[in-house]
Amino acid sequence: MSASPRYEAGKLQTFVEQVFLASGVNRPSAEAAARSLLHGSRVGLDSHGIRLISYHLSTITKGEVNRNPVLTIQKVSPSVSVVDADDAIGHLACYTAMEEATRLAAEQGVGAVTIKKMSNIGAAGAYVLWAAERGFIGLVAVNVDALVSLFDGKDAFHGTNPLAVSAPVPGQRPWLLDMATSAVPINKILFYRSLGLPLPAGAAVDAMGQPTTDANAACTLQPLGGEQGYKGAGLAGLIEILSAPLTGMSLSAELHQVPEATASAPRNMGGFVLALNPSSFIELDKYNSIITRYLDTLRSSRPAAGASGKPMAPGDREWEHEADRIVNGIPIDASTLSALTFLAEQYSIPFPDPVGRKQELV
Amino acid sequence: MSASPRYEAGKLQTFVEQVFLASGVNRPSAEAAARSLLHGSRVGLDSHGIRLISYHLSTITKGEVNRNPVLTIQKVSPSVSVVDADDAIGHLACYTAMEEATRLAAEQGVGAVTIKKMSNIGAAGAYVLWAAERGFIGLVAVNVDALVSLFDGKDAFHGTNPLAVSAPVPGQRPWLLDMATSAVPINKILFYRSLGLPLPAGAAVDAMGQPTTDANAACTLQPLGGEQGYKGAGLAGLIEILSAPLTGMSLSAELHQVPEATASAPRNMGGFVLALNPSSFIELDKYNSIITRYLDTLRSSRPAAGASGKPMAPGDREWEHEADRIVNGIPIDASTLSALTFLAEQYSIPFPDPVGRKQELV
Repeated sequence: MSASPRYEAGKLQTFVEQVFLASGVNRPSAEAAARSLLHGSRVGLDSHGIRLISYHLSTITKGEVNRNPVLTIQKVSPSVSVVDADDAIGHLACYTAMEEATRLAAEQGVGAVTIKKMSNIGAAGAYVLWAAERGFIGLVAVNVDALVSLFDGKDAFHGTNPLAVSAPVPGQRPWLLDMATSAVPINKILFYRSLGLPLPAGAAVDAMGQPTTDANAACTLQPLGGEQGYKGAGLAGLIEILSAPLTGMSLSAELHQVPEATASAPRNMGGFVLALNPSSFIELDKYNSIITRYLDTLRSSRPAAGASGKPMAPGDREWEHEADRIVNGIPIDASTLSALTFLAEQYSIPFPDPVGRKQELV
Repeated sequence: MSASPRYEAGKLQTFVEQVFLASGVNRPSAEAAARSLLHGSRVGLDSHGIRLISYHLSTITKGEVNRNPVLTIQKVSPSVSVVDADDAIGHLACYTAMEEATRLAAEQGVGAVTIKKMSNIGAAGAYVLWAAERGFIGLVAVNVDALVSLFDGKDAFHGTNPLAVSAPVPGQRPWLLDMATSAVPINKILFYRSLGLPLPAGAAVDAMGQPTTDANAACTLQPLGGEQGYKGAGLAGLIEILSAPLTGMSLSAELHQVPEATASAPRNMGGFVLALNPSSFIELDKYNSIITRYLDTLRSSRPAAGASGKPMAPGDREWEHEADRIVNGIPIDASTLSALTFLAEQYSIPFPDPVGRKQELV
């Protein structure tokens, strides 16, 4: 593997936005999609970064996504709104819902927003981070198409059903948890497949139901937790309840499968967004001092014998990547680069030149 | 092991309540504690059931718990209240907070309540179940004293930091998730120690940091997730943020250790309670039909090859135990029984006679 070329984040974001515009979606959709994909690429979550552009474009060209959605926000209770996304691309739906949730939280202390009729949202962390950057604790829970078995179950039943939460930390990048409730997310499996890397043990079974670390043979993902997989499956179920019964949208098992991406019908996905305003609960000084003490203590705690590094808080690895990529650019693997240059040609949009340094192995 | 004698739940609850009253706490404290402990015993969660009576009594006699607390509820934002529990026993604090959260949710759609100055709450499931039985989705998150290492960490840093959520299901017992964010809860380790049973692999390390399944050697618990233990640690962190920075109370690492229970100072625990009113989000008929379809599909799905049983929803095992124990009584293991009969003598409170059938091996 040779060093991947690196590209300036802002230029990549402009490129991605132009490609989405060229695909025919309106400007808010293109901006939201580019912003969300570049979140993944900026923080080192390459499985959920710019790599996903081809998938999202396919949902547009195949008619799953409405190119010119009219999103409506209905306040249904003092602290609850429902976003009808009119089959918008998921990124626009989710930023819209988070904006509404934080608006409610500023007013009421807490805001809960459900989303109806959207498509896949990419990295859920993008939306909660945006909330935390503006001083709110943000939470996003979204069910997706069934790829993960139940504990003791044979068939795919839940989606990887991500849960993302972010909390503001004064003078620092936020605390950021963005996790699939499966052992690993599907996009990591697809990404590892494209890179030819093995999966962690316990992440997946093959078509015969046997455990496998071969990304190509992986068929059904396993819930988080191994022997305690009933907990991962339970968390997936929590996200299912918030995303489907509470919104009226489809269960994971009823959503069409993403990898095929053959559907021309709207995706009919639901989602749940929550925002808390810390200063509605407690004097902000007190919140700030305790969360700072918490993270200081965590980061100075001792590593286990044989650990690969020091204990980190959720998000710390992301901020390391972000700091590097702000300075040195975003590395793009060969498979993603070839897809991007193909799109550049297809839409006659100039692809940015790489920055001078080529140092990260992907 | 011989069959454990069984006791009628209502009689046990009355006995427990009388013991708490005899220890000098006021009636609301005694009622709440008995109700919560009997929740655990009714649903088969024996590690968090009546077994805990001695621990909670020790917190009273040692002065950690205020025998006559004056709880105050302050509405700090339209959808947020703060319960100052005045060092009440945790069960009373948590039922009080859940009552307030559901009251807010009925009015605002969602209610968030933080708890200040309480002690341990036992099984978090008790409080969320009570919310779900009255038609609300309830959530409880509480940090506890440090027993669980960080992912890659050497020392105990987080508590077992439980997360419990329950959702109403029409015509059925609720969906009920009650989980420690460690691989297993500490009370299971203590219970297995008293029964002489081995622990699941990956649940704990010994004093030397080596993995162990010996309940007596277990020293530091491991976060949920094994190789993905950063997710369990991340969830523990989420609960920490909701319980300490958002409430002003202590971090897990700052709380005194429960097993020693030597402290005479107030416990200074915080907690977070959330309630959602489904009918504030969506027509109740629609919620009911989707959650019913979800659970029907889940329960009729196929077991994995080699699975010990059919896939179950969170709570299903509890309802099996509950159905059995309503009819046949609650089995009490020898170690717990000896503690209870000791208390009966100490306080001159008659201990109930066992019911006729003695069938369950504990």
